[in-house]
Amino acid sequence: MIRIRPSCWATNNRPDPSCGAAISTGIETPLAIGAARIGDCPPAGPAKAAKTRSRLNLTTLNLATSYHPKLVGPRGLGKLLGALRLPALRFEILATCPVTGARAGVLHTPHGQVETPVFMPVGTQASVKGLTQKQLAEDVGTRILLGNTYHLYLRPGHEAIARMGGLHRFMQWDRAILTDSGGFQAFSLSKLTKISDKGVLFRSHLNGDQHLFTPESTVDVQMALGSDIMMVLDECLAYPASHAAARASMERTIRWAQQSFDHFRGRSTGGQALFPIVQGSMFPDLRRECAARLAGLGAEGYAIGGISVGEPRPISMEMTEASVPELPVDRPRYVMGVGTPEELPEYVARGADMMDCVMPSRNARNGCLFTDEGKLIIKHARFKEDASPIEDSCGCPTCRTYSRAYLRHLFLAGEMLYCTLATIHNLRKYLDIMRRIRQSILLGTFPDFLAAARSRSVDDPARV
Amino acid sequence: MIRIRPSCWATNNRPDPSCGAAISTGIETPLAIGAARIGDCPPAGPAKAAKTRSRLNLTTLNLATSYHPKLVGPRGLGKLLGALRLPALRFEILATCPVTGARAGVLHTPHGQVETPVFMPVGTQASVKGLTQKQLAEDVGTRILLGNTYHLYLRPGHEAIARMGGLHRFMQWDRAILTDSGGFQAFSLSKLTKISDKGVLFRSHLNGDQHLFTPESTVDVQMALGSDIMMVLDECLAYPASHAAARASMERTIRWAQQSFDHFRGRSTGGQALFPIVQGSMFPDLRRECAARLAGLGAEGYAIGGISVGEPRPISMEMTEASVPELPVDRPRYVMGVGTPEELPEYVARGADMMDCVMPSRNARNGCLFTDEGKLIIKHARFKEDASPIEDSCGCPTCRTYSRAYLRHLFLAGEMLYCTLATIHNLRKYLDIMRRIRQSILLGTFPDFLAAARSRSVDDPARV
Repeated sequence: MIRIRPSCWATNNRPDPSCGAAISTGIETPLAIGAARIGDCPPAGPAKAAKTRSRLNLTTLNLATSYHPKLVGPRGLGKLLGALRLPALRFEILATCPVTGARAGVLHTPHGQVETPVFMPVGTQASVKGLTQKQLAEDVGTRILLGNTYHLYLRPGHEAIARMGGLHRFMQWDRAILTDSGGFQAFSLSKLTKISDKGVLFRSHLNGDQHLFTPESTVDVQMALGSDIMMVLDECLAYPASHAAARASMERTIRWAQQSFDHFRGRSTGGQALFPIVQGSMFPDLRRECAARLAGLGAEGYAIGGISVGEPRPISMEMTEASVPELPVDRPRYVMGVGTPEELPEYVARGADMMDCVMPSRNARNGCLFTDEGKLIIKHARFKEDASPIEDSCGCPTCRTYSRAYLRHLFLAGEMLYCTLATIHNLRKYLDIMRRIRQSILLGTFPDFLAAARSRSVDDPARV
Repeated sequence: MIRIRPSCWATNNRPDPSCGAAISTGIETPLAIGAARIGDCPPAGPAKAAKTRSRLNLTTLNLATSYHPKLVGPRGLGKLLGALRLPALRFEILATCPVTGARAGVLHTPHGQVETPVFMPVGTQASVKGLTQKQLAEDVGTRILLGNTYHLYLRPGHEAIARMGGLHRFMQWDRAILTDSGGFQAFSLSKLTKISDKGVLFRSHLNGDQHLFTPESTVDVQMALGSDIMMVLDECLAYPASHAAARASMERTIRWAQQSFDHFRGRSTGGQALFPIVQGSMFPDLRRECAARLAGLGAEGYAIGGISVGEPRPISMEMTEASVPELPVDRPRYVMGVGTPEELPEYVARGADMMDCVMPSRNARNGCLFTDEGKLIIKHARFKEDASPIEDSCGCPTCRTYSRAYLRHLFLAGEMLYCTLATIHNLRKYLDIMRRIRQSILLGTFPDFLAAARSRSVDDPARV
């Protein structure tokens, strides 16, 4: 039986923390949603909530989690959630590392559960380059991917995607999707970009047409796409920047975030979450202030942006450390655009729950494969007749099937299959690292994992 | 129980037709080979042979068919077959259309059974562009693919592939492989190609290095690759050519074929077949003469080459018609480099059992998708919001999963995934056409199938 207690979810468009177990079932099945009885809720309180958040309670089910697009349809569920004023996400923390504060959890989304910490492959144009959605799900084990709003807005267009049933249906991906705001690509890919308080004026890199992204319009675009998690428009300063410029930019980012949330809350019919983004360039005081002020928005999750913009890696870590303590402990934290395989545990150690980066897929296509022993440059002559897989210990289909010699041949011959096989390996590697991190947090051995990872690390990232 | 009667296979390196059932079993399993008793053969004669060639005898098992690379290893089996002097192939004709002469059969190869007529996808550089071997086998249903000797010889090199365990192991494809001789690409891709009686002198299109293909060397290269079916070096004249030039070229092709077979039979350890190629430009008398003289080689199969070189389609058909009657009826016939979807039943109607063409895969990548109703050009604006699959009736994973709108988007965005999905559809389409043709031959309805196909045909190919 599914129990729903709408009263405790309806106060401020997010759940009462004491009611974390308000929706639960003994059996996880999309079909069970049909048997839900609204208002049928057991007595709940702190003790019950604590119990349901324990590591053993893996059967807890968010109503949204049980959504199945073929049974209900995205529009129908969105309206249902909107009417109930339920949040789109529920973040369940299963374990926290007492030494570092790293968390292992489950993010319940309208398109399934996502175990955290999680790395999100980047599917820029409604496709993770070179992979079918089946390969992405089965071979890589992806539960959530990232789509780029800028690209989808320009081609095929968010309105066309909306008419096709939303991004999930358009690309036939029934797991979770996070979309960015499009602002970062508008800065980085376009010519003649102008930023004002109004928004970002840019020209399409495809045909030169002029477009304006505003805090409100980027929410509208992402609502049309139907992503599970949307991002607010923010200003991402280049590195380095002065403290004054960084403060002004941060103030604009906070204003835009407020505008985005006002617009979103006035229009949302449910089924989508919106994350604000902490900025503040490389100044810890601004990062702290920005995070604290954004926390007041009561968002379902928070992102830390504006890092990985050319600054030294220790500073990226420092900015994450400055931001995290100001964010609500019960909300997922998404560190945008990171990182190397060695950096993944470092960001988790600083409290990150979600990350994304083009590095695994782009490096794969360029011939750089990740292993526990470091990078493997596949074109090297020493692999010409190497019958071993990229990595003996890797369980990905590429490593279970093909030799380094064959991959090297495909790479040198310019065969598309190389990109597919290499991308499967590198993404699976990233997701496997995250799964190992998660397991160590659950087992209470994350500090050991971190120490071992650091002792192996070649890149010598900054330390906690 | 498996029964083997080596005496009747040992006469002229090909099986005694009366002993077609010499190796048979009630249960097809690679493991059963371990129970074979050499010399345990039942009385065999014409009546028995006729019975075993009947359509219902689907359990007949060739020793080679039961080869499993992981159990035996290619080298071990090759030596075994060589010692027994068994042919690499056995061609079983299950039904012949009494009207057209079209045949439905099974080609038993060292890497599994191939139902004929069959279309062979082209895997130029040890990869069918854009597909994993798993997709090629499971999604397309490929039982035999074609590898290009010219490309593999230049990169990664046949000797490297041999040291990696042969082409099957190198590319992890445990089904059948046919390789061409490399001559055609040496003519068409290279600069400064010189043809003499000795062979084809050419410069690599990769680095300009000079190489020579001789009738003997191309056999050696293909033996190193370890393909199940090898092709002799032939001279493929451009269209049009004079009768005198065509005769001279045909004579050279026949000489080369004889040299190839002499070399092959002196070196073969078994496990590979070699096909000669009928040439003669567009002159029926030369085609007939060439086919009749090559038939004297006693090969395990025969190819018809030198068509699809720019001549009008009715002439291609006419050359096939001229060649086929001179070839042994009990050997597979491979028409090289054809054709369009409409032409497939036309060639089968003229007695072809095997075909290959880059058209389905190349057209797919260029945005041209094949359907029963004709070509679909995916970039057309009318597909922008078309939620239907390429073809409603198609069972390929692309059609079962993705919309025309999504495919169009991927094509316009230059996403690799487009090539993968489009290639799956077009190749599956070709193989499905062949399966339907085969079924109609088995059912005795091929003339109706052909008539229906012709009534639908837009391209109006030549008629039988």
